[in-house]
Amino acid sequence: MRDFFSKKSHLAFLKEFTEPAMSAPLTAGLIVIGNEVLSGRTQDANIRFLAQGLGALGLPLREVRIIPDVAPTIIATVNDMRARHTHVFTTGGIGPTHDDITSECVAAAFGVPWEPHPEAMAMLGAHYAEGAFNAARRRMATMPRGATLIENEVSPAPGFTIGNVHVMAGVPRIMQSMFRTLEQRLPRGLPVVSRAVHAMPMLEGSIAEGLAAIQSRFPALDLGSYPFERDGRYGVSLVAKGTDEAAVEAAIGEARAVILAAGYTPIDGEPV
Amino acid sequence: MRDFFSKKSHLAFLKEFTEPAMSAPLTAGLIVIGNEVLSGRTQDANIRFLAQGLGALGLPLREVRIIPDVAPTIIATVNDMRARHTHVFTTGGIGPTHDDITSECVAAAFGVPWEPHPEAMAMLGAHYAEGAFNAARRRMATMPRGATLIENEVSPAPGFTIGNVHVMAGVPRIMQSMFRTLEQRLPRGLPVVSRAVHAMPMLEGSIAEGLAAIQSRFPALDLGSYPFERDGRYGVSLVAKGTDEAAVEAAIGEARAVILAAGYTPIDGEPV
Repeated sequence: MRDFFSKKSHLAFLKEFTEPAMSAPLTAGLIVIGNEVLSGRTQDANIRFLAQGLGALGLPLREVRIIPDVAPTIIATVNDMRARHTHVFTTGGIGPTHDDITSECVAAAFGVPWEPHPEAMAMLGAHYAEGAFNAARRRMATMPRGATLIENEVSPAPGFTIGNVHVMAGVPRIMQSMFRTLEQRLPRGLPVVSRAVHAMPMLEGSIAEGLAAIQSRFPALDLGSYPFERDGRYGVSLVAKGTDEAAVEAAIGEARAVILAAGYTPIDGEPV
Repeated sequence: MRDFFSKKSHLAFLKEFTEPAMSAPLTAGLIVIGNEVLSGRTQDANIRFLAQGLGALGLPLREVRIIPDVAPTIIATVNDMRARHTHVFTTGGIGPTHDDITSECVAAAFGVPWEPHPEAMAMLGAHYAEGAFNAARRRMATMPRGATLIENEVSPAPGFTIGNVHVMAGVPRIMQSMFRTLEQRLPRGLPVVSRAVHAMPMLEGSIAEGLAAIQSRFPALDLGSYPFERDGRYGVSLVAKGTDEAAVEAAIGEARAVILAAGYTPIDGEPV
């Protein structure tokens, strides 16, 4: 076992610190598109939902980028992310207004024409009254050539999939309905199993060395240490995650022993 | 004025779509470091706080990346972001446990030694009882050479600034106290002024063409359209932002006129 707290060069440490999930075959990336999140006008409500939903599919979220409604930025980010992740999800920017430019940027990223999508045109045409299906709303049925629609139960405007990129709405209720549609189609990886133990009062600094030793013995797991506060008292949650359930159980058993050895009382699960 | 909804090639459109804030001299980027946000265990509570705080300083947040506790990823992201933004902020990964690797990764990104910081050592040494200032806690006083401390009123462990990178805690209360310290030191840009008008009921599709025309006439402003729902009814908020207050007022006045012309009732401000 490596001595994590020794004085050895931190570069040597960095070389040794490998990513547990790197060997997992499937990863997901998320691009949140919208000035309103970057300005602080809006509290994002989509990242956590998708992180949990993707984790349950065995498609762990490994990277999120929040970017503005700026065409070159969207195009470059889509191309970077689709090369790095098995699946990429975007939220935001597919409505009818001038700041909704995600769809045409994704077409540009893939180098395909942005053109009326016959199925989407039919869906939206059926929804709106004759005069109300105006130019702005026809833009919502204009998509990269080759796109597959992602229908939803809330709004008449669909999202779409092209290649490994899934383009969804930013409004949480619509996005969630689109994700339910996608769940039926996405490949499933190995589900990630998670176990937790916590203690309060307890400070991270009193168990850090024992935890580092556990992480070294279970390099394929992700062992996290999360301090928390309840009514002015401090505690720590320890969470082990991985695809090997027996290893997860063993690691959390060792974490329990580290807490006990430090003179605290381990409690199963996370604090309520 | 360009006809945003014409059938002209979307590539021509993308060429014309320029970023209002691109000419602003100061920008901020944020790196959220932590597996717990990517797994959905934790709802991020720092992005919106920093977006608002940085906007108030005239240092608009233009990009956020959420990344895991993986050394090569942290190093590459810090180097990419510090080249792209006037100031870069990081949250998370500066505690005493094995998964807290932000500090040494920032040292590696800057190519400087990661070593005991005399001032931080003195602060933490004074806080902990003799035997309790163990190896894990000494890591919290180990920093990139040349770092300036960011003190806070909640925890004894400081953050630090090196170059244009400001390294803060992930726990919201500690991060907020560190940001209050930083606010006294950061340069201030032109403050961004914001005005809003909304209507309900109203759908974006009925005002989109008028809005696009306003955005074309005020290219230096950021004119956003945000649909919302209240008790099953749909409305839209229009928000103009920019550093030229007179232009912001003029643009929102025109937005009011577009709402009226579409047959709806404009109400000043955002819906409560």
